[in-house]
Amino acid sequence: EQSAGNIDEQVSGVVEQAKELQDAASSHISRTSVEEQALRKSALSLDSNIHRLRSLIDSLHRNKILDPKLADKLDEDLQRARCILVDGDASSFLPGNAQGGFLRMFLGPINVHATRKDVQLKVKEEYNSYRDRTALLFLLFPSTLLILRSWIWDGCLPTFPVQLYQAWLLFLYTGLALRENILRVNGSDIRPWWIYHHYCAMIMALVSLTWEIKGQPNCAQKQRGVQLFLQWAMMQGVAMLLQNRYQRQRLYTRIALGKAKRMDVVWGETAGVDGQLWLLCPILFILQGFEAYVGLLLLKTAFVGVVSEWQVVFCGVLLVLMAVGNFANTVQTLMVKSRF
Amino acid sequence: EQSAGNIDEQVSGVVEQAKELQDAASSHISRTSVEEQALRKSALSLDSNIHRLRSLIDSLHRNKILDPKLADKLDEDLQRARCILVDGDASSFLPGNAQGGFLRMFLGPINVHATRKDVQLKVKEEYNSYRDRTALLFLLFPSTLLILRSWIWDGCLPTFPVQLYQAWLLFLYTGLALRENILRVNGSDIRPWWIYHHYCAMIMALVSLTWEIKGQPNCAQKQRGVQLFLQWAMMQGVAMLLQNRYQRQRLYTRIALGKAKRMDVVWGETAGVDGQLWLLCPILFILQGFEAYVGLLLLKTAFVGVVSEWQVVFCGVLLVLMAVGNFANTVQTLMVKSRF
Ligand SMILES: CC(C)(COP(=O)(O)OP(=O)(O)OC[C@H]1O[C@@H](n2cnc3c(N)ncnc32)[C@H](O)[C@@H]1OP(=O)(O)O)[C@@H](O)C(=O)NCCC(=O)NCCS
Ligand SMILES: CC(C)(COP(=O)(O)OP(=O)(O)OC[C@H]1O[C@@H](n2cnc3c(N)ncnc32)[C@H](O)[C@@H]1OP(=O)(O)O)[C@@H](O)C(=O)NCCC(=O)NCCS
Repeated sequence: EQSAGNIDEQVSGVVEQAKELQDAASSHISRTSVEEQALRKSALSLDSNIHRLRSLIDSLHRNKILDPKLADKLDEDLQRARCILVDGDASSFLPGNAQGGFLRMFLGPINVHATRKDVQLKVKEEYNSYRDRTALLFLLFPSTLLILRSWIWDGCLPTFPVQLYQAWLLFLYTGLALRENILRVNGSDIRPWWIYHHYCAMIMALVSLTWEIKGQPNCAQKQRGVQLFLQWAMMQGVAMLLQNRYQRQRLYTRIALGKAKRMDVVWGETAGVDGQLWLLCPILFILQGFEAYVGLLLLKTAFVGVVSEWQVVFCGVLLVLMAVGNFANTVQTLMVKSRF
Repeated sequence: EQSAGNIDEQVSGVVEQAKELQDAASSHISRTSVEEQALRKSALSLDSNIHRLRSLIDSLHRNKILDPKLADKLDEDLQRARCILVDGDASSFLPGNAQGGFLRMFLGPINVHATRKDVQLKVKEEYNSYRDRTALLFLLFPSTLLILRSWIWDGCLPTFPVQLYQAWLLFLYTGLALRENILRVNGSDIRPWWIYHHYCAMIMALVSLTWEIKGQPNCAQKQRGVQLFLQWAMMQGVAMLLQNRYQRQRLYTRIALGKAKRMDVVWGETAGVDGQLWLLCPILFILQGFEAYVGLLLLKTAFVGVVSEWQVVFCGVLLVLMAVGNFANTVQTLMVKSRF
């Protein structure tokens, strides 16, 4: 046969090819790693230069040494340089936020930093659509339970569906916390609190799983805690939906700007959305107030002695803490934004 | 001041630098992505060439067209080429296993494929040491609970420590499942079953959290299920410790081979460890038998009517399924290995 004739030639050809490929791959890897090192160094030094110059201009301006008009112009130039650095291709060579303990705990030492800007944006977009999907379920799932409770179940929630829901919550918050940590590594400026908030929610879902759901007689009273918990969850759904609308629009503005390469638009990125923020925040404050109220009601049911499990006290305290933290961080965000 | 004098020069210098860096970064990114594309193509075609030649040699050998000695030599050459491809630098350009739904569910579309071989090995090493650490806790935690139960707690486990333990189990198995999926993406040949096994264990930990732990009177009888569960967990710890010793040695052999660049050693990589496998497996079989036994005992307690919660039946069925799956997959692994 013809193929049998030159088979040993073919085999040695393949061995040769393997060696060549190995050499090519190893030289490619070492070359790119040298180049990346250099780019990383330049990006870092440029970043620190920008910081240095900005504080220099600030101090000269304060001491009235610099003409205010010139100071403004220079500030704007620096801002443009920063936009090019942070939103352009060079951004992949800026050090991302360090990968925190939460990711290392679950994933080990794997690196989740995406080097390409378009991948980073895709991750962010997918995070937003994940939140959209879950926000709907967040409304549907507990409201179905509460509706069935009064229509069919005679005021008495059965154990299994509630526990299924709590398990889903645990899964959901774990996913959100992991994704937000990944976004942070990829350069998102998300405040640490919003991530801690999801850790708290994870713990709460876990604790609620161990919380025994008592049946008849006297169901309505014994299940008061669970019922409050479900109401809080529904409210979370509303908050998420509103927030998503706003965040999504913010991201789209950013992507559009990136695509148009109009990186010299300075504060432009939030301009179109800032109005929305002032609409969103009062609603958020009301929801946060409701969160604290649910927490206090839980504590009350525990101390009046109707339901005396530790889980009720724990969830109550956690809810109040979360409400306070959410409020403080929303206010701080607003303050930072209005300073510009 | 001197610095005020040339500050506008400095600022325009920084803007210039930012533009240059942007250009350098974008050309670097596009250049490397073209090169990587080419390397990926060569790696893929080499891989398929090796497969093609190997089956050609096999069929020629079967039809007695090829001299057996020559066939052996050619087979060995092909194996060497494959080792160079799979264990060398080129391996980063072979397509890894596709990222499954589990990772996408928790992490979103982020890529966890490490391109550098040393990072891949580090991930694997860290996985092994993670398992070592947890295996110890796996022994300590439930045995402490069981010992305290008979010494201090008068035969009656308190709820909180047991639930803490179950929450820890859930966290642990989630971490293991995520890490194993990441290893798979990075080219590990881990059988899908071992990952499914951890999904089952996750579900079991979750279900056990909802399982009410009854107190006095008649504690010993009511808590029979929980007690069996703890015993199974201790046994898992023993299995993990043994397995770790073996896997770790296997990995070290591999790393040593990689470092010495002795990639032409063909089957060498497992040679030193194969003996251990025949020692390990009987112990594994005994443990798997015990796993099934615990499952059946759980089912018995449920059907005799001492404990009638659905959680007990569910965990019992799951344990039996896991034992059968573990057994079948261990046997298959042995069969594959002994064929060489
Ligand atoms: C107040 C709020 C609308 C401000 O949003 P914002 O304008 O995007 O805030 P910032 O400009 O500080 O955002 C910085 C980054 O953090 C992200 N971020 C802000 N708040 C976030 C949140 N709650 N969850 C996740 N990510 C958030 C933004 O997307 C942005 O990411 P990027 O750097 O990748 O673009 C937002 O933080 C919010 O909705 N908070 C209230 C949440 C709440 O209280 N929920 C529970 C109600 S009971
Ligand atoms: C039988 C056994 C020892 C074989 O191990 P092995 O020789 O490494 O098996 P393979 O050669 O098929 O391994 C292929 C890959 O899967 C990995 N792997 C095999 N079994 C694994 C397991 N149980 N968990 C995680 N990874 C495993 C190996 O590390 C190897 O990874 P690599 O390709 O990155 O090097 C192992 O599968 C085992 O211990 N199984 C029994 C587990 C069990 O029953 N536990 C519960 C007892 S109740």
